Amino acid sequence: MQLHNDLILRAARGEKTDRVPVWLMRQAGRILPEYRKVRESVSGFIELATTPELAAEVTLQPVDILGVDAAIIFSDILVIPEAMGLPYEMIEKKGPWFENTIKSSADLKKIRIANPEEDLNYVAEAIKITKKELSGRVPLIGFAGAPWTIFSYMVEGSGSKTFSKAKKMLYTEPELSHQLLDMITESTIKYLKMQITCGADLVQIFDSWAGILSPAQYEEFGLRYISKICDAIDIVPVTVFAKGAYFARKKMSELNCETIGLDWNMSVSASRRLIGESKTLQGNLDPCVLYASDKEVERQTIEMLEKFGGHRHIANLGHGVYPDISPDKVKIFIETVKNWRA
Amino acid sequence: MQLHNDLILRAARGEKTDRVPVWLMRQAGRILPEYRKVRESVSGFIELATTPELAAEVTLQPVDILGVDAAIIFSDILVIPEAMGLPYEMIEKKGPWFENTIKSSADLKKIRIANPEEDLNYVAEAIKITKKELSGRVPLIGFAGAPWTIFSYMVEGSGSKTFSKAKKMLYTEPELSHQLLDMITESTIKYLKMQITCGADLVQIFDSWAGILSPAQYEEFGLRYISKICDAIDIVPVTVFAKGAYFARKKMSELNCETIGLDWNMSVSASRRLIGESKTLQGNLDPCVLYASDKEVERQTIEMLEKFGGHRHIANLGHGVYPDISPDKVKIFIETVKNWRA
Repeated sequence: MQLHNDLILRAARGEKTDRVPVWLMRQAGRILPEYRKVRESVSGFIELATTPELAAEVTLQPVDILGVDAAIIFSDILVIPEAMGLPYEMIEKKGPWFENTIKSSADLKKIRIANPEEDLNYVAEAIKITKKELSGRVPLIGFAGAPWTIFSYMVEGSGSKTFSKAKKMLYTEPELSHQLLDMITESTIKYLKMQITCGADLVQIFDSWAGILSPAQYEEFGLRYISKICDAIDIVPVTVFAKGAYFARKKMSELNCETIGLDWNMSVSASRRLIGESKTLQGNLDPCVLYASDKEVERQTIEMLEKFGGHRHIANLGHGVYPDISPDKVKIFIETVKNWRA
Repeated sequence: MQLHNDLILRAARGEKTDRVPVWLMRQAGRILPEYRKVRESVSGFIELATTPELAAEVTLQPVDILGVDAAIIFSDILVIPEAMGLPYEMIEKKGPWFENTIKSSADLKKIRIANPEEDLNYVAEAIKITKKELSGRVPLIGFAGAPWTIFSYMVEGSGSKTFSKAKKMLYTEPELSHQLLDMITESTIKYLKMQITCGADLVQIFDSWAGILSPAQYEEFGLRYISKICDAIDIVPVTVFAKGAYFARKKMSELNCETIGLDWNMSVSASRRLIGESKTLQGNLDPCVLYASDKEVERQTIEMLEKFGGHRHIANLGHGVYPDISPDKVKIFIETVKNWRA
């Protein structure tokens, strides 16, 4: 199907675009009353994510309501541990929780490399429905967690301020850690390829916990596996968002990906200097700017756009949109980007 | 009283020292069985911190048991909000919790600038007892939270992953925010001066949540107030540890302080380049290295020492020591520093 709006793909590939494309991390969900209505009709987050018709419905909402330049499939990065044999629950106001975690090589024998066609068929179905409903209006973004972030949850068993159990394993059991990271990486490559086969036009790798590793450890246990994924995906553009990994920006310029996501701490000029001209940059408004007055949202959005300069830029926040942000502020952000010209 | 070991003070002032001094953030507490014994004898953390004899006892433990080159007074950064009129509880495994928070200018009228001589007399007493017991063996470090971090708790009311309520106030009520930050700053200056009068030989300012602000906001709401504190303290050396504020390192070189703390993400060479030669650097081993084998702890400690080069360096971890770290590993870290020569 021909895309009517392919701005984000062209920006990712470094082609000239009439204007800067815009979308938001976490746009599918939370902030929209329309989402909350669907969410209340089911037992919980996981039921919503695993019911293809509903996942497709909430994926489409921000396209219809907010006017973003891309949809992102409604799902969760933790479907990979689940498909590998570590199921999780999503506990309201607490976050994910795993009954079993990886503590030893014996635990490694109990899990498997995911078979997405079987274990994650519901994502494939959701993508197919979404693509049909989009009928080429905007591209669809597929995604997965980066191996280190997935590893963190599989070892820690829940969210954490320090992820010290996961980091401990890197220091005490480096071989076991690499084995697990290999299994996650292989699972993720298969999963992303399936998403692309079903219609994802671009994929993003989220490394939410990149910023808690030392530079040396991030190179060994983080980037090494992201690099394998980037090398394996050659059909669609790849975006890598490694939150907090400011120390790795130079190294990331060597990744075989099109776009690097910046969080709101990262200076645009320093990032461009470190990453070079051959990548598109995505980001990076502080999500809390959307708490400010309409005028201030507009002012800061324009300031951000000017810093990027309008070329090789995909506008976004520097983090997922926070749940208590008003959709009206999100609309101002989006409209400001759409109306701005370099 | 003459100090027998003033390594840390001389390193802070940029004087030559025979070896690199070493201490650990959070050394007083948690990791030591001797601490846990004292902790179990009282009703909770706050009783321990507010009983001068006991606070002094646990302050001295790491000097006796671990052999660090400085003691740090056992206390908490949140005694300042309490002294300003916002009491808190420390909930086991959850962290601090405030019944009342600052939401409006009306709330600001309900609080006051702290009067440390009265409200924080227990800290003064603890310092006096500690100084007496130390009898010059090593210097005593006093401390306080940085205004932005204290502000975060006073507005948010508890720990948070995003501190989005606190950040929201900066965007929606900048004037109110500055008023509150001014009150915190004034309280903190009085508090640190009292600690110095009672015997603190060096003071450290902890900005635990520095890393969640954008560079522009950190300059306006963070560094500006730290700078005021540094300017007001001129008798003893000042250390500023702004966790995660890598983007502010260049600006921090202008602070009127002696030492800048680095977290484990910050590259030593880049930090030295950004901060220049006129400051001492403190840090920055990844706290999780202490989970590794004895040999690996030694290897990584030496690697860290070599990066700093042995001059204008105070060895430390890049974050507080984690509670489940073995004291034996801490001892290896400390001994390795003590035996190393540039």
